Amino acid sequence: MARDRHQLLVDTLRRFVRRGADTHLGRVLEKTRSEDLAQALAELPPREGRIIFSKMLEDPQRAAEVVSGYHLPSLAGLFEGLEVGQLSPVFAELSSDDAADILTELPDALSEAILGELEDEESDGLEELMQFGDDTAGGIMSTEVFALSRELTAREAIVALQESVDAEMVFYMYCINDEGHLVGVLSLRQLLTVPPATQLRDVMVSDVISVPITMDQEDVAALVARYDLLAIPVVDEFNKLLGIITVDDVIDVLRDEATEDMMLMAGLGDENIVQRTTFSAIRTRVPWLFAGVVGLMGAAALIRAFEAKIEAVAALAAFIPVVVGLSGNVGVQSSTLVVRGIAMGHIDVRAVGSTVWGEVKIVGGIAVLCGGLVCGISYFVGGNNLMLAVAVTHALFMSMLVAAVVGTSVPLIAERLGIDPALATGPILTTTIDLVGVLIYFVVATFWLGL
Amino acid sequence: MARDRHQLLVDTLRRFVRRGADTHLGRVLEKTRSEDLAQALAELPPREGRIIFSKMLEDPQRAAEVVSGYHLPSLAGLFEGLEVGQLSPVFAELSSDDAADILTELPDALSEAILGELEDEESDGLEELMQFGDDTAGGIMSTEVFALSRELTAREAIVALQESVDAEMVFYMYCINDEGHLVGVLSLRQLLTVPPATQLRDVMVSDVISVPITMDQEDVAALVARYDLLAIPVVDEFNKLLGIITVDDVIDVLRDEATEDMMLMAGLGDENIVQRTTFSAIRTRVPWLFAGVVGLMGAAALIRAFEAKIEAVAALAAFIPVVVGLSGNVGVQSSTLVVRGIAMGHIDVRAVGSTVWGEVKIVGGIAVLCGGLVCGISYFVGGNNLMLAVAVTHALFMSMLVAAVVGTSVPLIAERLGIDPALATGPILTTTIDLVGVLIYFVVATFWLGL
Repeated sequence: MARDRHQLLVDTLRRFVRRGADTHLGRVLEKTRSEDLAQALAELPPREGRIIFSKMLEDPQRAAEVVSGYHLPSLAGLFEGLEVGQLSPVFAELSSDDAADILTELPDALSEAILGELEDEESDGLEELMQFGDDTAGGIMSTEVFALSRELTAREAIVALQESVDAEMVFYMYCINDEGHLVGVLSLRQLLTVPPATQLRDVMVSDVISVPITMDQEDVAALVARYDLLAIPVVDEFNKLLGIITVDDVIDVLRDEATEDMMLMAGLGDENIVQRTTFSAIRTRVPWLFAGVVGLMGAAALIRAFEAKIEAVAALAAFIPVVVGLSGNVGVQSSTLVVRGIAMGHIDVRAVGSTVWGEVKIVGGIAVLCGGLVCGISYFVGGNNLMLAVAVTHALFMSMLVAAVVGTSVPLIAERLGIDPALATGPILTTTIDLVGVLIYFVVATFWLGL
Repeated sequence: MARDRHQLLVDTLRRFVRRGADTHLGRVLEKTRSEDLAQALAELPPREGRIIFSKMLEDPQRAAEVVSGYHLPSLAGLFEGLEVGQLSPVFAELSSDDAADILTELPDALSEAILGELEDEESDGLEELMQFGDDTAGGIMSTEVFALSRELTAREAIVALQESVDAEMVFYMYCINDEGHLVGVLSLRQLLTVPPATQLRDVMVSDVISVPITMDQEDVAALVARYDLLAIPVVDEFNKLLGIITVDDVIDVLRDEATEDMMLMAGLGDENIVQRTTFSAIRTRVPWLFAGVVGLMGAAALIRAFEAKIEAVAALAAFIPVVVGLSGNVGVQSSTLVVRGIAMGHIDVRAVGSTVWGEVKIVGGIAVLCGGLVCGISYFVGGNNLMLAVAVTHALFMSMLVAAVVGTSVPLIAERLGIDPALATGPILTTTIDLVGVLIYFVVATFWLGL
């Protein structure tokens, strides 16, 4: 929905709520898609959002759609003042993965009250789902999976499909044996193209791609992307079918993981990109900058330690940012390539040596080219001091290579240690390179200028 | 496929090719998924990859699957030495979006020869597809869309589906009127749940989400993600149905766009993250660093212009990296939030003023907190010079605010001017902030230290 059409929707809803124009409001709600309504409600003042949402409760199916599209951490605000009895029908309509995510996010008392209102079977399932780690296959799967015994015929399968109401977006049918183990898959379309009396076991594909319930969500997403799947079944250690992860959830995972990597690399922590308050944004970002302050003050102390050299050759001070800045750029390039390469599955994490060596060759070439330019310009900027130009160039060359090695190896090693590689890079890496760059610069300059 | 299983596949293929163990090789090829084979072939030495691929040509359907999964820019190498007559059956099996992408990438002579071998209808369609911009809906759509007249009954529709062979991943059926205009959609599952004699027009949903053929692929992907679609139809300006974009292509777009943004922000240009040679990597990265050299040499010249101040207060030099480095960090934070926020659709691009103001408030708070720490530490590091500490703190505060304004507004303005916001940030932004930071630092220091 284009931004201006969206703004129009927000304004219209607001106007009708203020006027109490219930009939008009009802008509707008009816003809607007749930996803658009969810976003509009989130942008309205909380009280007005709640008025509209409480009207939608008459149709729990619709309310559930809006709730699924709503910004998760703000849902508690939308639910404020509502009775548990009004909310539980909505939760009964939600797909189990969404319901579990939301219940985890709500205040404990409310979440328990809602679970208490649901049917036992449903609440047991949800409580089980809530146990799984947020970032695992179990945490993002839905338990409403459409599975049939492989002994059924195509005709029976079609009837079963016609009678099913709850299953999430059916396009694959999973076949199970008597023990509930996943033994095959077939597409809805295949089902239509075989004679009605055919047993599923004779047409199903038995080589099913499935994931264990503990698998990291990033790995699940990579599999779905790699094999162009619309859904992937989740199994336990005995290959018993437990749930399904659909491609729309995978898209969310891919987008969120890319966002998270970018945030971490920019020193933004896990800042929520939407609806942050000024205060919470400051709180998330300050620690990274404090770390930067400490590192850069280390660099300052280092420069002060070499102050006698600057007093001897005043122009030395001018080139600190050149050496430090360019090495920082190289370090960011190297680490970005590695972090994204790991996320996309292009980099073999075990091959630290060859990855670092590949990058060192590239940065070596870059350093030679940049070195030529830097030598020429710094000769003039430095007041025709050839030895100074040589020192700057030499320091830059070394410092760039160090940046390449550090920028490549740190995220690789982090990944192998089970630390998020994006977390291990970012501002901390840049500050480290700053410190090393300053040290190299003065040591090299001392040598060439005979200080 | 886990990395070690993958390595095993590569090693096995290689061993069998070298030994000429055709029967074994054939068996491995048969039981391996096409996506895994595609990746393995790309990792084998070119000659060996070609030997295996030429064996697969006996089964054009299978060869087409491997080709779709292969790294696009390297395909010409895989095709080397093959006859056009061997390749054209493979192209006949490819989905039209993949075929058009590949033909665009191949040398003109080869691509024309292949088009010449295909049936007229097919080659005309492909040539048309090749006209569309790579980054538009037309560039990523497939023309094999399953569309039916809305006058058909459910029973007739099922028969039509059973007889169709070419259509891409069918799960929605699009309904058209006599003029070929898109008028409705229904899911395969709905089709099964209505009485066989029902006309499609009576059960279809007529409010279809579709995209114009010229729409940017990022916007298409955003729509598919927003409404959790499995496919989205592409129409011309008269709403005539032209093609379909499936969710697997959308996933590729989302991943590629995130990668591209990260590459641009790190000053890696549009460097291809996979299979780059040392030389091509140097060529892509050097221009950005040259720009950095020029900017940082500007900063060096600026520092030299203030050399008399450093000679008066030697410790002044030590805090240049503190001011410049921390402002750079803030600039990266601000621009990353905006670039990603635009990509995710969270930021209203027209609201430049309020977005900048929101960020200035946050960075103002951050600057006060960092300023306290910086003032304290720099007092000691600077040799108990209170005025110096005040100058550093004051300069940092101003420079951080400038970084916030520049970091937020530049990508926003770029987006409004139709320039990729990620391109407008990255190293160019950091270097600008470096220059401004140095200038602010010396002007402020001159004031406080009475130089």
